[in-house]
Amino acid sequence: MSGDCDFGLIGLAVMGENLALNVESRGYKVAVYNRTTSKVDALMEGRAKGKNFVGTHTIEEFVKSVKRPRKLMMLVKAGPAVDALIEQLLPFCEPGDIIIDGGNEQYQNTERRTKQVEAAGLLYVGCGVSGGEEGALKGPSLMPGGSAAAWPHIKEMFQSIAAKVGPNNDIPCCEWLGSGGAGNYVKMVHNGIEYGDMQLICEGYQLLHELGGLTNDELYDVFDEWNRGELQSYLIEITRDIFSAKDDLEGTDGFLVDKILDVAGAKGTGKWMSQLALDLGVPSTLVTTAVFARGLSAQKEARVRAAKTLNGPSDSSNPEMQAIAKSLIGDREEFVEAVKQALYASKIVSYAQGFVQLQAASAEHGWGLDYGAAALLWRGGCIIRAQFLDRIKEAFDADPELENLLLTKYFEDAVENAQDKWRKVVAIASIKGIPVPAFSAALCYYDGYRMARLPANLLQAQRDYFGAHTYQRTDRDGSFHSEWLDLRKTPKA
Amino acid sequence: MSGDCDFGLIGLAVMGENLALNVESRGYKVAVYNRTTSKVDALMEGRAKGKNFVGTHTIEEFVKSVKRPRKLMMLVKAGPAVDALIEQLLPFCEPGDIIIDGGNEQYQNTERRTKQVEAAGLLYVGCGVSGGEEGALKGPSLMPGGSAAAWPHIKEMFQSIAAKVGPNNDIPCCEWLGSGGAGNYVKMVHNGIEYGDMQLICEGYQLLHELGGLTNDELYDVFDEWNRGELQSYLIEITRDIFSAKDDLEGTDGFLVDKILDVAGAKGTGKWMSQLALDLGVPSTLVTTAVFARGLSAQKEARVRAAKTLNGPSDSSNPEMQAIAKSLIGDREEFVEAVKQALYASKIVSYAQGFVQLQAASAEHGWGLDYGAAALLWRGGCIIRAQFLDRIKEAFDADPELENLLLTKYFEDAVENAQDKWRKVVAIASIKGIPVPAFSAALCYYDGYRMARLPANLLQAQRDYFGAHTYQRTDRDGSFHSEWLDLRKTPKA
Repeated sequence: MSGDCDFGLIGLAVMGENLALNVESRGYKVAVYNRTTSKVDALMEGRAKGKNFVGTHTIEEFVKSVKRPRKLMMLVKAGPAVDALIEQLLPFCEPGDIIIDGGNEQYQNTERRTKQVEAAGLLYVGCGVSGGEEGALKGPSLMPGGSAAAWPHIKEMFQSIAAKVGPNNDIPCCEWLGSGGAGNYVKMVHNGIEYGDMQLICEGYQLLHELGGLTNDELYDVFDEWNRGELQSYLIEITRDIFSAKDDLEGTDGFLVDKILDVAGAKGTGKWMSQLALDLGVPSTLVTTAVFARGLSAQKEARVRAAKTLNGPSDSSNPEMQAIAKSLIGDREEFVEAVKQALYASKIVSYAQGFVQLQAASAEHGWGLDYGAAALLWRGGCIIRAQFLDRIKEAFDADPELENLLLTKYFEDAVENAQDKWRKVVAIASIKGIPVPAFSAALCYYDGYRMARLPANLLQAQRDYFGAHTYQRTDRDGSFHSEWLDLRKTPKA
Repeated sequence: MSGDCDFGLIGLAVMGENLALNVESRGYKVAVYNRTTSKVDALMEGRAKGKNFVGTHTIEEFVKSVKRPRKLMMLVKAGPAVDALIEQLLPFCEPGDIIIDGGNEQYQNTERRTKQVEAAGLLYVGCGVSGGEEGALKGPSLMPGGSAAAWPHIKEMFQSIAAKVGPNNDIPCCEWLGSGGAGNYVKMVHNGIEYGDMQLICEGYQLLHELGGLTNDELYDVFDEWNRGELQSYLIEITRDIFSAKDDLEGTDGFLVDKILDVAGAKGTGKWMSQLALDLGVPSTLVTTAVFARGLSAQKEARVRAAKTLNGPSDSSNPEMQAIAKSLIGDREEFVEAVKQALYASKIVSYAQGFVQLQAASAEHGWGLDYGAAALLWRGGCIIRAQFLDRIKEAFDADPELENLLLTKYFEDAVENAQDKWRKVVAIASIKGIPVPAFSAALCYYDGYRMARLPANLLQAQRDYFGAHTYQRTDRDGSFHSEWLDLRKTPKA
């Protein structure tokens, strides 16, 4: 027995409600269910009133109200709650039905559940949903992966509710990404790149404010200008806005940003991406640096104590260093432009690292990930929404196996053009004592990556010396071990 | 029934054999067992011949040949093999017996096994053993933790076989560290610090070689000199030696280090420490940077390809930057001294981070870790063996709750004295295109840590803007959320 609903949604917190309303608004009939069924009634009598909704009060009623093959989407807390729900759904589902998880789930869980649900004759989709409450209602970025056979059934509906981009605003931010946990992984990397972008903007802010002496009004103008060029993105745009916001508490004045405590929170996705990069052995240094920078920011009291004891550079009492610093900073316009180029080049490195990690993960799990699609999905609806994602999509369209974004002409030229200014910014920050961990990590990655020979030959010699770990040679194949104690010169007494 | 052996050792690979011989050499009678019993016979008829050993061929015979309370040590492959062995030992053991694991085990396993073995009325010790095969025979660094009641029983024996340090060579590198997995955790952090030390030395090498133009003979002299001062340590010593070793393959000449492929291997302990730092939220950036640098070194073919495409800085065609670079480098003697100071200051930061992570882990697990003891154990027998660990021990003796090593006078002065040169080195490397990820990460940590105010206020504003994640204020308690869209200035078209 099946009903006439086109879609079913379980979990009526704000995200779920908004997504259901979004689907209904595209001409679909929607069944809804929530464990606390009073939420179903509240929705039916509230925002869903007069709309094409069916409110249900049991899992069975919910499943049976949807047309086969059923599209049943869960928007509940990630983790065990999803497993419990799948167990409840399975007895009422029929072969070919599609269970979709829209939570911020770890990809390993989706890998496991896809196998479990497929073994029961159904299809499973883990779909990253980005864009928050507003995105869910008006057009999120959707990152689906899992059972490939599910895609033809959900494609039209999912693309209709997704954010749209492109000159005619008709390219949906929703494409099939690959099998298993591919969708969740892409969502995780999206968030990790977001961590990097935010940290880079913060470092630019600190430099412009502390070394450049820019006021909030001037910062507003700088970010407004940056948002009109290659840096154009949602995060640059809201940063501009933030510099215009006045304090909104009664009895206060001044800019709100100056009143906010410099202690960053985090919800864990950047940490996951960093830990998985370490497992894969790929150097995703930007996201990790950003996560650690948030960690250091959270040690606020320790920093306040340390600030009283630990001195910065003595360049002010050193005429030579003072002259070098002055010459590196240049005039205000030059400095703003240098910071912009440092931010742009570092951002390119950050995205390059993110895609290298996606490739390594896809290779390890056999997902057949569509990298161009991933870039496209981040163009709208989500937090990244960076203009230069179009260039990334083009790069992967031209070469789906592209090894590193830095090797495409567009980004190669961009970094080439930016690098002297980028180097100056890192140098001046080091000399003046302003921490720029993400700018420097990006530069070190760039310089390490373009280096045919790194000093790891010495490191391998050390490992072979103390632990007989063996080494390879440049001039012949095989593994070698040397008796270093016999080879070394006898040291002076 | 119990025999008259003082100690039992299971697992006769080289490490196990050597450790057994070490124990016997201190006047103890030792029972040995190995799953493949022919190894027992080979030992008894070989290196143990005429010595105070009892070879056993079953677990029961092994256990029963040792005096109560028995000290039974396993040196087998970490992981499931240890669990299996514990299951085999328990039926023959009696209350108060002590099972000791000397493998390179993840601390979580030792936490679990300590509870399991204690529940059976026995005691359990997870003991980090460092120093490789030679150390096991002549004097390893031993890092025991687990059931505190075990310590009085094993203390004398373990301290007798451990490496000795101090002016009179009588301070054993073996002290009780704390409960549960404390010993394994300390061993892991030891290895992570070793990763950092090695990466820092490699960066110094690349700078001296590529920018300073030093030959291997000259590098030998530099490291020989460094090994006589505050940098004195085993890794500096073997680096010196490496620069004197001639190629040992027939038909080759030149220095061996130049023939080694720049692809670094890794066995995973640095990765564990990095991942656990991310879980704890403490910024252990040095070990993570070192792990990622090894990862980038392993992408050798990709780097060789990238080197053909990606250009370095254009300072050679820019007279102004050329002049700045020249002035920053100074003469050769100044440059060598600057690199030394950069290495020294970065190393201090690396150890400071390691101890912060130990403190966070100890607080989370309630180990009551003895930090001064940890520093002491790394003075001999192991790979670190750095002279300045004496200063770290003194610091924790003076203040067991010391928040950060950087806040002790000795290290504060050292960094203060080094910092201008350290800053110059990072600046010059950035300008000249030499990757120094660990030098920069250390500098950014120092500058971030001594900053009472970081730009995380902007980051919290962004998070509240796009995700309503709330923020704290500098001027009053509580969590706040603002309607940024209403507060912002309407942007120009």
